[in-house]
Amino acid sequence: MLRFVTTNPGKVREARAYLPREVEQLDYDYAEIQSDDLAEIAARGAREATGAADGPVFVEDSGLFVDALSGFPGPYSSYVYDTLGIDRVAGLARAEDDRSARFRSVIAYCDGDAVETFDGIVEGRIVEPRGEGGFGYDPIFEHDGRTFAELPTEEKNAVSHRGRALAVFADWLAGESEGDGGAR
Amino acid sequence: MLRFVTTNPGKVREARAYLPREVEQLDYDYAEIQSDDLAEIAARGAREATGAADGPVFVEDSGLFVDALSGFPGPYSSYVYDTLGIDRVAGLARAEDDRSARFRSVIAYCDGDAVETFDGIVEGRIVEPRGEGGFGYDPIFEHDGRTFAELPTEEKNAVSHRGRALAVFADWLAGESEGDGGAR
Repeated sequence: MLRFVTTNPGKVREARAYLPREVEQLDYDYAEIQSDDLAEIAARGAREATGAADGPVFVEDSGLFVDALSGFPGPYSSYVYDTLGIDRVAGLARAEDDRSARFRSVIAYCDGDAVETFDGIVEGRIVEPRGEGGFGYDPIFEHDGRTFAELPTEEKNAVSHRGRALAVFADWLAGESEGDGGAR
Repeated sequence: MLRFVTTNPGKVREARAYLPREVEQLDYDYAEIQSDDLAEIAARGAREATGAADGPVFVEDSGLFVDALSGFPGPYSSYVYDTLGIDRVAGLARAEDDRSARFRSVIAYCDGDAVETFDGIVEGRIVEPRGEGGFGYDPIFEHDGRTFAELPTEEKNAVSHRGRALAVFADWLAGESEGDGGAR
């Protein structure tokens, strides 16, 4: 059994659709450090959360990285969403020639000892808000002609950064179960 | 003797001008957590850094808070300076009617056990860049008719958020030395 350390039950449902083991939510608010590197933030979070669990845990952290803004808002996407909001972020990108951006998700898994991280990335570009679905930056992130807010949830989960990270994590777990020692 | 945990020797010189005890730099890069609250970030940093020292330590954290942007960039001022830069931050404020802002500094002192925090705030407003001095957001922060980049260093230190926090901390230390148990 795995514990997904998150305050968001929606993420737990999404994880259950991918992972080959039972997943339980551990509603624990671990400290996220300030870093440019999502993987470092997630790895430290997983290590901290292990202390609150009695078995393997994983955490997930994600962000929107706009190329012309040196990766902004990146690891602070949630704070920037709450303060500037998506219209101002779209405005910052509008002033740039290059509007390419990517969503990145990192999953960090800790069995109490080592930490493994798994990455998922989806490429796109920043556009004016479109669509009624999704959450966060979904309305201004266009991938393959549609914003993430224009995709049905299932379709979005299939191409999203978090879906990709979960798929890589699932592969690794399957290998672990076969007792290959986690080589990948 | 006090240890100022910082990678910035300029801050140490500034602290020596205020504090009634000997101050040494401890060049240690403690983890800053993600939080809307500077005092929480500094307090946790001081507690972590205590483990790397053999005596009392203090840390300082500061940020620029723009009212119309819900406090952005706040605790992430340094990251936003590196990614967006001051011209874009000035542009975000330019689009707002209310351009009021404040610099806030928090010092957290830890003697290995309890943590005390000390606040310094200076009010101003965001303007187009002016002046050659200072660093960071100084050119776009106007206080009393001049930007912080237009003030000579000594004059700036006398009114700045960090100077104010250091002054409050100095008062408290003086009280401590008199053996009043830290009441303030």
